[in-house]
Amino acid sequence: MIIVPSSNTIELCPIGVVHRQRSDEDVNDGELISRIVVDKKYADGLVGIEDWSHLYVIFWMNRISDEKKTLLCLGNEPKMPTVGIFATRAPVRPNQIGLTLVELVRRERNVLVVKGLDALHGSPVLDIKPYPYWLKGHWIVVTKYKTPAYLRKINKKTTRESQSHE
Amino acid sequence: MIIVPSSNTIELCPIGVVHRQRSDEDVNDGELISRIVVDKKYADGLVGIEDWSHLYVIFWMNRISDEKKTLLCLGNEPKMPTVGIFATRAPVRPNQIGLTLVELVRRERNVLVVKGLDALHGSPVLDIKPYPYWLKGHWIVVTKYKTPAYLRKINKKTTRESQSHE
Repeated sequence: MIIVPSSNTIELCPIGVVHRQRSDEDVNDGELISRIVVDKKYADGLVGIEDWSHLYVIFWMNRISDEKKTLLCLGNEPKMPTVGIFATRAPVRPNQIGLTLVELVRRERNVLVVKGLDALHGSPVLDIKPYPYWLKGHWIVVTKYKTPAYLRKINKKTTRESQSHE
Repeated sequence: MIIVPSSNTIELCPIGVVHRQRSDEDVNDGELISRIVVDKKYADGLVGIEDWSHLYVIFWMNRISDEKKTLLCLGNEPKMPTVGIFATRAPVRPNQIGLTLVELVRRERNVLVVKGLDALHGSPVLDIKPYPYWLKGHWIVVTKYKTPAYLRKINKKTTRESQSHE
């Protein structure tokens, strides 16, 4: 048995911020174009990012107040069960971290133009990582998975693939 | 044009910690079993998580010191170019956030037993999210993507699929 160090508060610095053209945009529109303005002091970190078509964007959902946070999402429809927050993507989580896989449309120096980012205007961006990841010579893309029955009734079986680049 | 609020430091609290059985385990072995011990005060957040076969684990790579952090990864082989940190998964990034898609083997109350987590023993866990995500009635799984030529020479074209649950 290994002793686990006690965990303390962790501090992060935003590396950039999400910009929107208009305040009334529907962030759940998968075709919506967003701009990630990376702080100029971090711009060197973007070199070569345009060789990837898809990126994970990790951001901070800064409009979630502590009072709204919860551990249980109460089922709001007859057949929607109450589930834990970690079994959902609801933003009202202990650490309001957002994670979205987006398509990189283009880079304009320190600005990434991306498609499909569901972050609100002004959301601080914490990290950007390439998709997919790889391990010992294999790209890792999980296409066989189990999902909850209550969501399978809502979501179609077919996966929506992004535009092909390759 | 909308004014973007200035970004300040963000504070997070670990919700749990990665436990390993032995200190000499190879965290890059995709078959390696790990335990995520979720703090008991957050355990309610795990209700129903076993309905998902795959989870994103967002963790903190707490052994990365500030001095090691970089924005450019220097190419260390003749055909490996120098690229920005956000075009890589290297841990020496401005915010040392780790993101790994794992397979959920089982839940034991506040402990998740997972396969494929490349976090070191004692890494604080920040968030857990279900895979895949969904949007307007569609599961989103990206199977067509562009990757850099220098990595395509190393990684096989075939994707390694996880065990099927469905």
